Amino acid sequence: MRRYAVLAPHRFASDAKTAHGVIRYASDRVVAVIDPEHAGKRVRDVVPYLESDAPIVATVAEALPFEPTALLIGTAPKGGALPPDWRAAVLEAIAARLEIVSGLHDILGYDAEFRAASNAAGTTIWDVRIPPQVPIFSGAAYRIAAPVLLTVGNDCAVGKMTAALEIVRAARKAGAAPLFVPTGQTGVMIAGWGASVDRVIADFAAGACEQLVLEAARRGGNPIVVEGQGSIDHPAYAGVSAALLFGCAPDALVLVCDPSREYLEDTTIRCMSYAEAIDVHERLLARVKPAPIVGIALNTRSLSTDDAHRAIERARSETGLPANDVVRFGAGEFYAAIAPALIKRAKPA
Amino acid sequence: MRRYAVLAPHRFASDAKTAHGVIRYASDRVVAVIDPEHAGKRVRDVVPYLESDAPIVATVAEALPFEPTALLIGTAPKGGALPPDWRAAVLEAIAARLEIVSGLHDILGYDAEFRAASNAAGTTIWDVRIPPQVPIFSGAAYRIAAPVLLTVGNDCAVGKMTAALEIVRAARKAGAAPLFVPTGQTGVMIAGWGASVDRVIADFAAGACEQLVLEAARRGGNPIVVEGQGSIDHPAYAGVSAALLFGCAPDALVLVCDPSREYLEDTTIRCMSYAEAIDVHERLLARVKPAPIVGIALNTRSLSTDDAHRAIERARSETGLPANDVVRFGAGEFYAAIAPALIKRAKPA
Repeated sequence: MRRYAVLAPHRFASDAKTAHGVIRYASDRVVAVIDPEHAGKRVRDVVPYLESDAPIVATVAEALPFEPTALLIGTAPKGGALPPDWRAAVLEAIAARLEIVSGLHDILGYDAEFRAASNAAGTTIWDVRIPPQVPIFSGAAYRIAAPVLLTVGNDCAVGKMTAALEIVRAARKAGAAPLFVPTGQTGVMIAGWGASVDRVIADFAAGACEQLVLEAARRGGNPIVVEGQGSIDHPAYAGVSAALLFGCAPDALVLVCDPSREYLEDTTIRCMSYAEAIDVHERLLARVKPAPIVGIALNTRSLSTDDAHRAIERARSETGLPANDVVRFGAGEFYAAIAPALIKRAKPA
Repeated sequence: MRRYAVLAPHRFASDAKTAHGVIRYASDRVVAVIDPEHAGKRVRDVVPYLESDAPIVATVAEALPFEPTALLIGTAPKGGALPPDWRAAVLEAIAARLEIVSGLHDILGYDAEFRAASNAAGTTIWDVRIPPQVPIFSGAAYRIAAPVLLTVGNDCAVGKMTAALEIVRAARKAGAAPLFVPTGQTGVMIAGWGASVDRVIADFAAGACEQLVLEAARRGGNPIVVEGQGSIDHPAYAGVSAALLFGCAPDALVLVCDPSREYLEDTTIRCMSYAEAIDVHERLLARVKPAPIVGIALNTRSLSTDDAHRAIERARSETGLPANDVVRFGAGEFYAAIAPALIKRAKPA
């Protein structure tokens, strides 16, 4: 079990989805968050839904009294580079003999200065995003017996991992033996296994997805619930989304949407409507291996309670599908509603 | 200018699309092909459409009298590993002081034995597939002034690169200043620049495509004609196809089809019909940046002349689009028919 100090200076409130995911879902414990902007507060004062009393401090030195064993890089910036002004904090943590845990594309263990410091201190660097060596997609995933559920989104960063984790919790409560399949660095940190499929060489990305669902089948997951990535129409990330959509050979999809999101992240491209998203996903898969969208998980965090209920009602009436905010209102009812649709589907002959 | 000996033992006739592409299109010259199965013949005896008189020999030693300066690995096997029984030939070529040119995923320059041999012989290894460092997709491709044409396919290995090269030839003959944009290892070998986008880390694949079309714009290409990869519904390669479809920000697509192909390569999944392929591509792009399919390039190599004409006629009547086999019957008429549709298209506001 790790005890994490989470590094997220000036970003914890707004741009630290790695930190948030680990705080809410990992079995490892977060003992302090480093963000001078909110020093002196508790995590729940800044991000209430994380329900954590961990203290926020200004520096690595101030985190040390809480006895962390590891420093977690708490953000996943676009392009995955380490913000240059964070180097000093990482070196300070290494000097204090903390393990470094990073999900950045920048592999910290390949950095000469970090490696030398880590060797000198006798500590380790866990670069979560280093990809496994995998074969190309083979079709073996079509022969998995348990149903595979994949979360897909109407954009990046709408809560596909979170929805998958909440569905798994609800399925477990309902007596099933679900398994969460991590496909991104935060998911890997939370579950302790998996792979960042966006880091794999593009030609092997579908193969990496297939290996993950095969591993989940070996571990006895039923249903197998895969964390999605990106969005099938986001120009920067559609390739990764497509690799997941085909590589996992899903039997069912849950569409995750932020109803207040108008444009795809960092673009002026309008997000898909429910009807468009259902159509594009089901149409792409129809001839390869059909997988319907069986429910809609809404991320209503930016809405008032009344507006959230209205958005959920609208999603239900527009699509005829189960819809809910599985974080805000719990996933129990949602899981019960989608469970009958989590059945194994065959490839067309 | 290189003089290539092409290594393709027991595969030259059937499974050597790298060799075929370089023989037909590269400005570098192929002086001999190594394939004991056809030793004693000429290239045109085995693969007539390549129109080459280069001799086929049984061994590297027998190729040396034709004064090659480089050994080209002539296949692109799935997964990209060097067939183990080819190692000896590669070492023999290095000992004979030939440069090694390889498009395999296996990076030969990282192989200790090859590197030591190459250092000892004072020769070099060009691993064409080593990817460039690129930023993630930014949207800069939307601001390119010249129209961008992308070839897409109803499967892998149907001739997307070849169709792009023939369209470029025809456009040049017609007085335009077209530029071929290589996105795979054979294309890079032919054009001497470009990148294997399937080798890039998945998260950066769209960014790599964007950098290639930006480079083509800097080189003054008009139209810019991009070699496609895979197929948008091939489960193993859809991720790469999607990265190209969005990352190149195309203004128009040419659909490349082998009409005799019933199932996607190595699968039991039926290939898309013309209508399905047009629908899925245009629908995916519609809200991001519209790009119509403006013509259909058929690969009728496996058909008789009569059947080829019938297949072309069927494609025309089913779709109402220009259609032809641009290798077999020339690309001049086809280019003239699609040229009016090669116009710059705007993103939706």
